[in-house]
Amino acid sequence: MNPEQRFSERAKGREGSEIRRLFKMSMKPGIISFAGGMPDPGSFPSKKAAEVREAGLRERGEILLQYGAARGDDRLIEVVLERMQQKGVEAGPRNVLITSGAQQGLDLCGKIFSDPGDVLLVESPTFIGALGAFRNYRAELAGVPMEADGIHLERLKGSLEALRDRGIAPKFLYTMPNFQNPSGITMSREKRRRLLEIAEAYDFLIVEDDAYSDLWLEGSAEDVRPIKALDTNGRVIYLGSFSKIVSPGIRLGWALGREDFIDRFEMAKQMMDVCPSPLIQAMVVGLSEDGFLERHIAELRGIYRSRRDAMLTALMRYMPDGVFWTKPKGGFYIWVTLPEGMDAVALLPKALEKNVAYVIGMAFHADKSGRNTFRISFCHETEEIIEEGIRRLGEAIAEAIR
Amino acid sequence: MNPEQRFSERAKGREGSEIRRLFKMSMKPGIISFAGGMPDPGSFPSKKAAEVREAGLRERGEILLQYGAARGDDRLIEVVLERMQQKGVEAGPRNVLITSGAQQGLDLCGKIFSDPGDVLLVESPTFIGALGAFRNYRAELAGVPMEADGIHLERLKGSLEALRDRGIAPKFLYTMPNFQNPSGITMSREKRRRLLEIAEAYDFLIVEDDAYSDLWLEGSAEDVRPIKALDTNGRVIYLGSFSKIVSPGIRLGWALGREDFIDRFEMAKQMMDVCPSPLIQAMVVGLSEDGFLERHIAELRGIYRSRRDAMLTALMRYMPDGVFWTKPKGGFYIWVTLPEGMDAVALLPKALEKNVAYVIGMAFHADKSGRNTFRISFCHETEEIIEEGIRRLGEAIAEAIR
Repeated sequence: MNPEQRFSERAKGREGSEIRRLFKMSMKPGIISFAGGMPDPGSFPSKKAAEVREAGLRERGEILLQYGAARGDDRLIEVVLERMQQKGVEAGPRNVLITSGAQQGLDLCGKIFSDPGDVLLVESPTFIGALGAFRNYRAELAGVPMEADGIHLERLKGSLEALRDRGIAPKFLYTMPNFQNPSGITMSREKRRRLLEIAEAYDFLIVEDDAYSDLWLEGSAEDVRPIKALDTNGRVIYLGSFSKIVSPGIRLGWALGREDFIDRFEMAKQMMDVCPSPLIQAMVVGLSEDGFLERHIAELRGIYRSRRDAMLTALMRYMPDGVFWTKPKGGFYIWVTLPEGMDAVALLPKALEKNVAYVIGMAFHADKSGRNTFRISFCHETEEIIEEGIRRLGEAIAEAIR
Repeated sequence: MNPEQRFSERAKGREGSEIRRLFKMSMKPGIISFAGGMPDPGSFPSKKAAEVREAGLRERGEILLQYGAARGDDRLIEVVLERMQQKGVEAGPRNVLITSGAQQGLDLCGKIFSDPGDVLLVESPTFIGALGAFRNYRAELAGVPMEADGIHLERLKGSLEALRDRGIAPKFLYTMPNFQNPSGITMSREKRRRLLEIAEAYDFLIVEDDAYSDLWLEGSAEDVRPIKALDTNGRVIYLGSFSKIVSPGIRLGWALGREDFIDRFEMAKQMMDVCPSPLIQAMVVGLSEDGFLERHIAELRGIYRSRRDAMLTALMRYMPDGVFWTKPKGGFYIWVTLPEGMDAVALLPKALEKNVAYVIGMAFHADKSGRNTFRISFCHETEEIIEEGIRRLGEAIAEAIR
């Protein structure tokens, strides 16, 4: 049996990517890993979770272990709506679908909006998981470069005009306006407004991935108000996540948008995995009571602020001249640009020899550009280890420059 | 904004199906529902689950709340492999992927194997969730009729020949050989062998959905050995589920097959929802220790045996002449055939007036045939209520015949 001939077009030829090989290389034990996006496990609310879950199962096991509503638990949807209201987004229960993390929201956007060959706009660089989700629907991904204050709007308009000349209207633009994964860049408020105007003018949807906004490390929540808060025409589908504020192992997020969009998402999700787990949803409802979650998030900000600061300080200290990096105001990630002509792919084995890992920038570009860039994350290691890891990384780069 | 024009081809025109409308009508409060496939909530192992979960979270919260392996937890995969070995299937860890219920396995089969327009073979009737999952990939679904001992092999061969004349090779055949949802029919052992031979001869894959096999209510586990146990050529993708033996609210199942297939499933799943919840997986591992799960399943058999018997007895007593039904040896479902020319769709409002609900047979057919059939489930109501519900149903049918 030749298995390859049996696969769908979307599944063919996926096995041997360089990116996957490099990911696997980066997972060796004992390494200082700036590669992953795993939150600090010491920060998880395990004790509180045990308390609320235990009570729930003993008292309401008959409900929590049964099939639940495809759309999600009403009480968790209320929690989401309250959080969204604090972000300036007014919506009702029929605007929300609980998902298995924001990743499932991305899969649903691909499924509901895109046919093979459709053009989707993405930031360049952008989240790997979005590239993968959209590629599964055989969309053509057009990258738009980033600037220090977010997506490059003139370049976006240029792409839109070029597409229009070819008779193509993109289905949606995917953006992560706050502390973008991988660049750490935050879109300015002015740009959010203008992006929405451009979406109106060229008539495409915006998929707004806001997985990190609660982890602002300076300024205030006002600075990270979502594009959705400006959206009066149902043009934005907002994707949220509990992964970074509760834990990723619970696999819960949400999609928020027009009722008719969310209805389709619900119908599709029923045929994907029936419903989110009522048990886990009840746990998050429990964690949201009495202000626990807000206090918890404030603690998380403290943890990640120290780590970000440690990484930025170490970068200043150890990076050779000609290396540049972003200064994120929140989230998990810093984006490093090596001198033009240097190759982060070739550098990686040298960094791994020194037991430090990052993710090559190429992985985050729809067109596999960005060879002189990489992503490092400050979420997972302690301050001391961050300093040591950046020291080693600086050493590896200095040796490669020489 | 015209939302309809923004949807992908797969998502268009899905909103207003008659089947969805009838489903919703059947969910009115106070009704005796034979419609759903919800297990008896009183049977859920809530207390034991609370114990293992609470301890797990307190001792291993840092692991259980973190991202896990995309493929699933090693320990749960071991549990799966042991259960599969008992069913006569020898496999290794690389043959298994943990899924969000068997439904996600169906979604993955559609995603990995089928392109728009591809022909997939299904039993007629078949599981609604499979029809929905495969339709999301815009497959053409060809139904093959069922007999008392499973899929009609001569009709299958006829379909295969007709397709071959058109130059079409189906990608796979989807079957539920044990206590099929919706018909309750079990495929004979001889037919399983012959079906596999036909798959070899015509070179298609078999997707075997085995969600109910542990709930055999007579005979023994030997009678329900999966087709996968006969498969020496990697032709069968087996889908299992913890929904019926632990609880559906945990959303856990598995896919088992050739390594190269499972590798693709894993890559696709990563882009769908990253990983299954380590927390929930650990709970199921805990429930599997010290023989608890086996004892629990034996108890479930007792519960569902009484309910099945109560329903069969009531059908004998209350159904008018000319009505036929299957006598399932396990699972949750009985399939009822009304006299030719009668319409189960037209009957449903009359049944609902008497506060009893079923699912119309049409919903389970790829071609929407089967209008004189419906499915009733004995899983959710107690013996007394089952008798009363069947009495009312018999009354409604008798009135319609008159």
